[in-house]
Amino acid sequence: MNPVTVALIGGSGQMGRWFHSFFRDQGLTVLTADLDTPKTPSEVAAQADVVILSVPIPKVVAVAQEIAPHLRPEAALMDITSVKQRPLDAMLKAFPGEVVGTHPLFGPKEKSIEGRTVVLCPGRGERWLNWLRTLLEKAGARVKVTSATEHDRLMAVVQGLSHFVLIALEKSVRQLGVSPQDLEDYSTPTFATLHRLAQRLLSQDVQLYACIQLANPANRPALRALEDAVADILYFIQRQNSDGLVRLLEEIREGFGGEKGL
Amino acid sequence: MNPVTVALIGGSGQMGRWFHSFFRDQGLTVLTADLDTPKTPSEVAAQADVVILSVPIPKVVAVAQEIAPHLRPEAALMDITSVKQRPLDAMLKAFPGEVVGTHPLFGPKEKSIEGRTVVLCPGRGERWLNWLRTLLEKAGARVKVTSATEHDRLMAVVQGLSHFVLIALEKSVRQLGVSPQDLEDYSTPTFATLHRLAQRLLSQDVQLYACIQLANPANRPALRALEDAVADILYFIQRQNSDGLVRLLEEIREGFGGEKGL
Repeated sequence: MNPVTVALIGGSGQMGRWFHSFFRDQGLTVLTADLDTPKTPSEVAAQADVVILSVPIPKVVAVAQEIAPHLRPEAALMDITSVKQRPLDAMLKAFPGEVVGTHPLFGPKEKSIEGRTVVLCPGRGERWLNWLRTLLEKAGARVKVTSATEHDRLMAVVQGLSHFVLIALEKSVRQLGVSPQDLEDYSTPTFATLHRLAQRLLSQDVQLYACIQLANPANRPALRALEDAVADILYFIQRQNSDGLVRLLEEIREGFGGEKGL
Repeated sequence: MNPVTVALIGGSGQMGRWFHSFFRDQGLTVLTADLDTPKTPSEVAAQADVVILSVPIPKVVAVAQEIAPHLRPEAALMDITSVKQRPLDAMLKAFPGEVVGTHPLFGPKEKSIEGRTVVLCPGRGERWLNWLRTLLEKAGARVKVTSATEHDRLMAVVQGLSHFVLIALEKSVRQLGVSPQDLEDYSTPTFATLHRLAQRLLSQDVQLYACIQLANPANRPALRALEDAVADILYFIQRQNSDGLVRLLEEIREGFGGEKGL
């Protein structure tokens, strides 16, 4: 079997460069195209077995439509964006061959894929899905295969809500005018960790983090649950109702009773 | 100089036991009283140079009033609760001698005080304040001396808001019915850290964490800032306004421009 050729469309972005190195280290031939490369996305797409879109979420539909006519019929079209329903739909519509949605659950600062999770959402066909799964697992990744709907439902919590609360916390701190020096001097281990996570998030690609809040249709019910949670907690605080607040905390704790102790 | 005698009132609680070991390791004589001890709080208070209240926040006023008449005039009355304005006021009112409010910014699971922060809020007198400061610093603690008002203002962020967002996140997750197994399988490094912090908080003394939300008068403006922040972020999400959300994220980031990069 000839070595597989992978084309990374949007390969100059951070995750594009990360996967360029990764695939090259796996012995594959890697082609790259971006806005500023000599070869166009359609040109490299025409030469590859596996074409991976590594473009901002809002561009997936247009780029999929642009390159799809140039893909070999036996090639596969994939993406690595943080939401899955819309990109997968767009790829399935644009290209009649094999389609896989993927979402690496880590950022471009990770040194290795070992122990990191990659979600795969089957679109159409199994050949290149299985090839990718094997490749990732051999490299030490944890691979989870699920539907795009289920992916988005879980990411609305794991990414949507968790980024939301970090952003809301930092915005409040700014609003209250607490100085960075005071935050450092009077920090607790818990606050220090939250603040560090929030600062790291904000120091990265804010366009991406805005997309993660905007482009996942499952964020809507998740944010409603968060609004309800905030209102429920505030209800007891505003009434200085200690018993009610204790009961609320105990109910959350009991809900997680199945998990291992910490 | 005779070895100092410390009395821990509420010494059977987790932080009481922690400080019992700590003071004993510093070579001090430590007396303890709690609801179930042979000696009453007033009895041990009468025998000590430094009397430290390690009782739940709502009990500080009553316990201070109960034991204050029994303290030696040259003794000091202190507390270790998580808010400072009300406990300090109560101690100053109940006892005419030296008074110090303290707040160790760590939990009972820390093995050592080294590198951990303790806040001291001067109430009345300097002798025992300086004694405690020296003792803590020699043991490796970082000591911050500030007013009770400033302490409470900072803790409304560092403890109040940060616990609030963790509790709200966990309550939302419960509400959405996401299974613990899915949370584990589809976790990102950021979510895993948030979830672990929240679970640890909820696994501890929920009465204490309810008090931290209820007993700090500075929580009110902090929670208003959080409500505003949530509303501001939701405003852009609901309108699918990407530019607005990106600008909001950039503004938070620029606000922290003075801090070292991450």
